[in-house]
Amino acid sequence: MNTLTENEIEQRLLRLPEWDYFDNAIHAEFEFDNFKDCFSAMSRIAFECEALNHHPDWTNVYNVLKISISTHDANGVTEKDFKLAHAIEAIVEEDEE
Amino acid sequence: MNTLTENEIEQRLLRLPEWDYFDNAIHAEFEFDNFKDCFSAMSRIAFECEALNHHPDWTNVYNVLKISISTHDANGVTEKDFKLAHAIEAIVEEDEE
Repeated sequence: MNTLTENEIEQRLLRLPEWDYFDNAIHAEFEFDNFKDCFSAMSRIAFECEALNHHPDWTNVYNVLKISISTHDANGVTEKDFKLAHAIEAIVEEDEE
Repeated sequence: MNTLTENEIEQRLLRLPEWDYFDNAIHAEFEFDNFKDCFSAMSRIAFECEALNHHPDWTNVYNVLKISISTHDANGVTEKDFKLAHAIEAIVEEDEE
């Protein structure tokens, strides 16, 4: 899988306002009401990761979830990363409804 | 809840060989066969955290889980942190059987 150029990444990020590009990966931070809500979202994201066979670097402290996604094999950001980011957004937005 | 002294912490860590004390918290790193096994352990740990009403700072990348525990309110390490660390050890050891 080809890595995307910085321009291609920035263009795709226009559709993901909560995500930023730095350190050769795309990153987002989500805040939930409490740990239970946060971990519930993580569980749903975990199933999606397995389905896509693509896994993030993620950190949780109580109600806050920080996620970084890159394609280690390609040493950069690829379409695969945006596919996972959009899947995560769909899960988190659903929780916010 | 009172914070423990460095001596008290080191003494308690003798019973937790996989854990280290630094940066005012206790830390451990666990490696699993794959993401599914790792996240399964995280789910069981999450329930324990809710039961104890105490939550770690934890990071996952594929099959690796890094956990840091401290008592933010006390600004240090307390008995509460060791209670959670032992609960986590019990879950991870069970998975290794």
